Amino acid sequence: MSPPDHALPNRLSVPTDGERVWRNHMIMAKLGATPKGGVCRLALTPLDIEAHCLLARWAEARGFTYDLDAVGNMFIRRAGSEPDLPPISSGSHTDTQITGGRFDGIFGVLAAFEALEAIDDAGIVTRHPLEAVVWNNEEGSRFYPGCMGSAAYAGVLGLDRVLDTTDRDGIPLRREVAALRAALPGAGTRALGAPIGALIEAHIEQGPILEAEGKTIGIVTGMQGNRRFQVEVLGEEAHAGGSQRRYRKDALVDAVAMVTALHGVFHDPEDIIRFTIGRFEVSPGGLAVVPGRVFFTIDFRHPEQSTLDRLGDQVEGLCRAAAKSCAVQVTEISRSAPVAFTGAVPDGIARAAAAHGYAYREIYSGAGHDCRYFADHCPTGMIFIPCERGISHNEAENASPGDIAAATQVLADVMLELAQRR
Amino acid sequence: MSPPDHALPNRLSVPTDGERVWRNHMIMAKLGATPKGGVCRLALTPLDIEAHCLLARWAEARGFTYDLDAVGNMFIRRAGSEPDLPPISSGSHTDTQITGGRFDGIFGVLAAFEALEAIDDAGIVTRHPLEAVVWNNEEGSRFYPGCMGSAAYAGVLGLDRVLDTTDRDGIPLRREVAALRAALPGAGTRALGAPIGALIEAHIEQGPILEAEGKTIGIVTGMQGNRRFQVEVLGEEAHAGGSQRRYRKDALVDAVAMVTALHGVFHDPEDIIRFTIGRFEVSPGGLAVVPGRVFFTIDFRHPEQSTLDRLGDQVEGLCRAAAKSCAVQVTEISRSAPVAFTGAVPDGIARAAAAHGYAYREIYSGAGHDCRYFADHCPTGMIFIPCERGISHNEAENASPGDIAAATQVLADVMLELAQRR
Repeated sequence: MSPPDHALPNRLSVPTDGERVWRNHMIMAKLGATPKGGVCRLALTPLDIEAHCLLARWAEARGFTYDLDAVGNMFIRRAGSEPDLPPISSGSHTDTQITGGRFDGIFGVLAAFEALEAIDDAGIVTRHPLEAVVWNNEEGSRFYPGCMGSAAYAGVLGLDRVLDTTDRDGIPLRREVAALRAALPGAGTRALGAPIGALIEAHIEQGPILEAEGKTIGIVTGMQGNRRFQVEVLGEEAHAGGSQRRYRKDALVDAVAMVTALHGVFHDPEDIIRFTIGRFEVSPGGLAVVPGRVFFTIDFRHPEQSTLDRLGDQVEGLCRAAAKSCAVQVTEISRSAPVAFTGAVPDGIARAAAAHGYAYREIYSGAGHDCRYFADHCPTGMIFIPCERGISHNEAENASPGDIAAATQVLADVMLELAQRR
Repeated sequence: MSPPDHALPNRLSVPTDGERVWRNHMIMAKLGATPKGGVCRLALTPLDIEAHCLLARWAEARGFTYDLDAVGNMFIRRAGSEPDLPPISSGSHTDTQITGGRFDGIFGVLAAFEALEAIDDAGIVTRHPLEAVVWNNEEGSRFYPGCMGSAAYAGVLGLDRVLDTTDRDGIPLRREVAALRAALPGAGTRALGAPIGALIEAHIEQGPILEAEGKTIGIVTGMQGNRRFQVEVLGEEAHAGGSQRRYRKDALVDAVAMVTALHGVFHDPEDIIRFTIGRFEVSPGGLAVVPGRVFFTIDFRHPEQSTLDRLGDQVEGLCRAAAKSCAVQVTEISRSAPVAFTGAVPDGIARAAAAHGYAYREIYSGAGHDCRYFADHCPTGMIFIPCERGISHNEAENASPGDIAAATQVLADVMLELAQRR
């Protein structure tokens, strides 16, 4: 991204409809609405399939086609004049966390759909096809790991491994993908890994920086790498009244010591380290029973591979040292390298934001997103907008209609420009 | 209990059948048997009702009658020659913890039933009626609090409050008591609080002392008092990748600090304090979500009221001081005073154990038991036997056929002696 380019006006632009894209958000937010104002719409549950069906109906009303691939990713397409060119694609996900909000994921899908509608309204036939994409199971809160659909599409995860993944009730993803296809009889078939010409993902920041600095648009320069672990602490159940402290093997006591030791190491004065223990399950959970087992997860993220290596390698040792009376098993369950976004997409976002007079800045993504897997394959990038108080993965998550409209406008401009490129 | 008495032979004794009482344990252990060799038979579930029905069939085969009271306690009766005298009663409970063992509770029921059978086999008509009692919901693992049936019988808990108690699925105890009665059409009705002449409860120690000292019989001299609390920690859910540490309100981080602070205070060199955090629930439990809420329970027991007062009163302050970014609410949910057992029952146990040559010692009960509520109303006491490695509330809980036979013999002798007293 070269500074002089930013100042140039964007040569191609069609007006997007900020009211329409906001209205679509409010309609979608009803699918899985929670009493606290959030959304619970776990991947490929009936509610999430309903969200896919709603998008399909909107697509049909426009004359757009839509395809599904073997892992349940959905691609809504507006044809271009040169059918052999790869699509210029944009999208995110419809699934949410258990206590999710109204914008995480769905904003990227609806902004992309609005870009297709706006370009369609303007009557422009682009060279490349345009696509709004719904990646399956981004959150990973029903099927582990997250970003599963995009990872499978990009060849990072094998097809059978993905389809055999089960949720906590033992239901395999394979069954839910079949249910999605059955619910969308009008869907065509997309080959897993078919080329994509460029990929742009619009998303809420999920952090406080843009709001704090009064910026409307974040041009994402990269994404943290991460390492994830699970820790199992095995002690011995005992009677709360009868068993003496000196003989106890209290799994909670040892697990609490591990959490304390880990938090003592995983922080830095710059506050760049992201370290979260999100699942922490104590068994059997009886009021009068000394806990015999604790299971917890560790999510550790950092922009630098060297820090991921140095600190991540200490997890097992810290847990073992903190275990006083229990056995402990530490397993690393996934790792991803940091990603950098450069070139046509971030450059185009900067030009479009500047052309419309939106305040913007470069920003690093703390969260992982589906487009991470495409940075090595095609021009890739992300547009962030502020989210209120930085709160996300929370029912109180909020974003403003104005910021959503602005980012949608930027997205449509970037897609149009890339779709006309020779 | 005066030492000279111990040496006197017991004047009344009938032989109990150790093989029969062991066989009955193994039959009962099948109702709710777990793959790890334990038992899961929560109060008034179909499995627990089946246990009551099995006892009813055994009673009918003997010509014993059985009654139910309004809260689901069951009283199996062998009539005496003087129907106006109150029964000499013994029993415990059939329900278990979620990860329960084969002996906790059911041993006291089956030992009492064997005492009735042995006295019946001997053809002795006692003056007082004899009873084997099944107190409802001792464990409190389905309906909170535990010892609910005995507390209601003794008037410590009100009838409506008990019957309106619901389990985690919202099912009220009232409905399950009705189901028990429907399953036992042959049951008579016992008035709640009807006088009891004496109450003896046989139980596994649930601690390591008898085993370590090679004693067969523990003469229980008293029971710890307890105070129970629940603590709710309210933070704010946030994205694991986006949210900075300095802005987080991580409920797990604060709850872990509370657990550490509490454990720093609740211990003593004599290892008499019993302090257990058994339930510890972290929400929402997503791998990539900073926990917004933690709920945990505290079970604190001690033989001395002054220590219960002094330390228990520190719980709230310790939790508040440890909360760095979250709100905390501490609620005391129950308290019981320490109990002492003296007089006819412990004296009788000592005489019977001495007469049969069983090694015995006085012992304090760490756990709470149903008979605690009767110590002020009638001669009351408990017989303990060793349990392997002191392990209880655990599927690995174990006791020996020899110890069970010995304690059953002692129990039968004590019941017979009390039932013939003028």
